[in-house]
Amino acid sequence: MSLLVTGSIGIDTIRTPHGSSENCIGGSAIYFTMAASFFSPVRFIGVIGSDCPFDLAKVFVGRDVDLRGLEVRQTSKTFRWAGTYRETMDDRVTDSIELNVLAEHPPVVPKAFADSQFVFLANTAPRLQIQLLSQIQAPVFVAADTMNIWIMDHLEDLRELLKRIDCLVVNAEEAKLLARQFHLVRAAEQILTMGPAIVIVKKGESGALMCARDGSKFVLPAYPATEVRDPTGAGDSFAGGLMGYLAQTGGTDFDTLKTAVAYGTVVASFTIADFSLTGLTNITRQDIDNRLEMLRKYTCF
Amino acid sequence: MSLLVTGSIGIDTIRTPHGSSENCIGGSAIYFTMAASFFSPVRFIGVIGSDCPFDLAKVFVGRDVDLRGLEVRQTSKTFRWAGTYRETMDDRVTDSIELNVLAEHPPVVPKAFADSQFVFLANTAPRLQIQLLSQIQAPVFVAADTMNIWIMDHLEDLRELLKRIDCLVVNAEEAKLLARQFHLVRAAEQILTMGPAIVIVKKGESGALMCARDGSKFVLPAYPATEVRDPTGAGDSFAGGLMGYLAQTGGTDFDTLKTAVAYGTVVASFTIADFSLTGLTNITRQDIDNRLEMLRKYTCF
Repeated sequence: MSLLVTGSIGIDTIRTPHGSSENCIGGSAIYFTMAASFFSPVRFIGVIGSDCPFDLAKVFVGRDVDLRGLEVRQTSKTFRWAGTYRETMDDRVTDSIELNVLAEHPPVVPKAFADSQFVFLANTAPRLQIQLLSQIQAPVFVAADTMNIWIMDHLEDLRELLKRIDCLVVNAEEAKLLARQFHLVRAAEQILTMGPAIVIVKKGESGALMCARDGSKFVLPAYPATEVRDPTGAGDSFAGGLMGYLAQTGGTDFDTLKTAVAYGTVVASFTIADFSLTGLTNITRQDIDNRLEMLRKYTCF
Repeated sequence: MSLLVTGSIGIDTIRTPHGSSENCIGGSAIYFTMAASFFSPVRFIGVIGSDCPFDLAKVFVGRDVDLRGLEVRQTSKTFRWAGTYRETMDDRVTDSIELNVLAEHPPVVPKAFADSQFVFLANTAPRLQIQLLSQIQAPVFVAADTMNIWIMDHLEDLRELLKRIDCLVVNAEEAKLLARQFHLVRAAEQILTMGPAIVIVKKGESGALMCARDGSKFVLPAYPATEVRDPTGAGDSFAGGLMGYLAQTGGTDFDTLKTAVAYGTVVASFTIADFSLTGLTNITRQDIDNRLEMLRKYTCF
């Protein structure tokens, strides 16, 4: 089934204890799309400025990515982000950020994408997420990400969005902030009362938690990877693997969602093994499937 | 098979956002024994002073706990600990600590316990752990816990201990400190080179990681409990469930160890639901088995 993503395209500069990468490609829509493309065709929506050095047709060459939703604004500049990871790799500081096109009006959903069935609204202002979602006719399953600044400063918009989506995919700290609840399982259950039928909490190296409105739960550790060079994009890759698998199968029952979370976990483990997209461009679907079986072996008792 | 534990018996005062408990029973050997007793008889070794208000025969009534290793020192005082948990429940501060008998010479292993097959050396000075272990004739499987002060100040003793045990059970931060490695899987692999064939890392609400010298790995999330009133004793209960199950089955192969880690996880989830031992005294083995099946359902995909 069709899968649409809206999110950012970035020019990233990343420093970790294992090296650095200047002006490399990044952004939520980029990581999501690369991850999802192992499972399903992807309809891509995003905006760049005239300064963007990347040819996305080349970035996604050989993958079924429809770039008709890519908008180039000649008088604007591309989103830029620079960050440095601590020695422990479990935290990072933002060195600089230039929103540029992300601070402008959102892109338009092409008419050809209006019938999309699976939709992922990557993190941006919830008002823009609502505007984008309004352009989709009859989505089957809509998931969205959000972050602390929207929870703190745009809570009313976010509450409106939550009523219109099926699934919130969110970091642990942000789930606690949104629910005003320190206990993570309770925080997820609290968010379920705000609208979505499914809440998926990303816990980084501690894995993921999924709670459903009917009381179903799923907890999965992160893949016990030993290669971690650059965690950037792990969350968006997780969402890409998750939504890609759902769009591939067309299912949204809890068992399918569990496998989708496992695929998201595995794809993210490849992302963090190298800088920018390198960890994802060097692998095949078979590598992902093999690692999924390893994860099953590592977690089954 | 026989299971022996040596560890502390404490008079605890605990404050959490959910209440407080003054002068309640605690200590590593107490939590371990209560947890292990659901699976196996336990041979108990520990020391109290004349001020101890608890009758351990009553504490363990109805359970197969051999208290011939309990020593009462008439001129000494019992170990005391007071701590307060932060509002988030993921961290605590020690308000006061009185080592008392724990700062004296270790207890003697009764002759009747010298043939013990499964041995757990709860956290104490590694030199004392070695002395205690030396009194066991031919143990089948020895596990030990340790903590930051021994890693920092008694590393040589700890390295000697590590060569004599089969399994180290340790917190994540302490594993990283011991291995001088921030990446947890690599830290566990590094510790394997120091002696033990198995390393089990306790990650609190993030679950547990087990690595074996042959490369086998197991990762398990914590049970997604919603009742968390007092995390004290979670780690020792985890070890008790783990070792109790091993002693019950007599096995130490990796598949048995995986199930043992799952039992430890489940028993710990009951411990944290209430203050002191209350969470463990109100349940049956059937409750534990039922929750193990729930954990399997929550983690299987």
